[in-house]
Amino acid sequence: MGVIEALVSEFARLPGIGRKTAQRLTYHLLQQPPERSLRLAEALEDVASRVHPCPECGNLSEGDRCEVCEDPRRDASLLCVVEEPSTVGALDRAGFKGRYLVLGGRLSPLDGVGPESLRLGLLASKLEAGTIREVVLATNPSIEGEATATYVQQLLAGRGIRVSRLARGLPMGGDLEYVDGLTLSHALQARQEVS
Amino acid sequence: MGVIEALVSEFARLPGIGRKTAQRLTYHLLQQPPERSLRLAEALEDVASRVHPCPECGNLSEGDRCEVCEDPRRDASLLCVVEEPSTVGALDRAGFKGRYLVLGGRLSPLDGVGPESLRLGLLASKLEAGTIREVVLATNPSIEGEATATYVQQLLAGRGIRVSRLARGLPMGGDLEYVDGLTLSHALQARQEVS
Repeated sequence: MGVIEALVSEFARLPGIGRKTAQRLTYHLLQQPPERSLRLAEALEDVASRVHPCPECGNLSEGDRCEVCEDPRRDASLLCVVEEPSTVGALDRAGFKGRYLVLGGRLSPLDGVGPESLRLGLLASKLEAGTIREVVLATNPSIEGEATATYVQQLLAGRGIRVSRLARGLPMGGDLEYVDGLTLSHALQARQEVS
Repeated sequence: MGVIEALVSEFARLPGIGRKTAQRLTYHLLQQPPERSLRLAEALEDVASRVHPCPECGNLSEGDRCEVCEDPRRDASLLCVVEEPSTVGALDRAGFKGRYLVLGGRLSPLDGVGPESLRLGLLASKLEAGTIREVVLATNPSIEGEATATYVQQLLAGRGIRVSRLARGLPMGGDLEYVDGLTLSHALQARQEVS
């Protein structure tokens, strides 16, 4: 296999990138100065060699600890449990000021993912430290995400820690006609009184 | 800028890849073993360091000459003029058995691309060699592509070389209702008698 074909194959292994797109990307880079390809290669190598899970929370980190754990202004009594590191940025932009626990996945027995595959040991360490006042469960709104949230909730029971979950309801900007039935059902059950 | 952000930025510089997709690709690679990122990095470096234009035809080449020029079974009397290397594969798959001249672009005065930016010197060398019997103009069916084809056609005039162009007409599988007017006009003018 030639080097051009090899690059097409590697691009095509990325999610959402088919063979045609992989060819287009490859030919695009071939029309650019080689420095463009080398800069992308370098960025990939840097990520591969320097990014690792934060030993305190499982978030992606480039240093000893991640940026969130390094930040002393963060509220250490408020802990948000998420599945993946990609959720951390989204919640930060949404205004969350506490710390995180990144599980690194969600319970999925059919895929062989049990509690031992998640970073629950880090959760135990944080609980032992005794600083946590509230845990916000922010797993994804899927069957597996719900099961994971329930599992974590049970681990937290009887410890005098407040446990909350992200609210369910209508997304902004939608049209009631196109909202799925489960979301609408949640929104109806959790309806809020208007004073 | 951190290494994760740097990779997102490099991905986002690729055509058709926005910031959201770049983030998704980056987080995907971060969830894979580092070897995945390193393989993509290596493929990029190989392409950047080993692929260069063929000195005989301008096609992409990994060796001294490109695969087409290396192949002695190719008809050296038939030369197909294309804009970019990506067209070579498409015409090969369509059954072309001659050789190519890859111009490396198309005339576009507004973008500052004049004849001196194209590989017309290679065309001159090929004409001097005296082996060419027919030139097939296969530039893109755009304003610039048409202008480029006309320019090359003028260079070839009076040399006793047959000059042809790819046929214009209806694409396969289309619906007449949705074919653009210019294509339909070409198809009508070039209508073929059915015996």
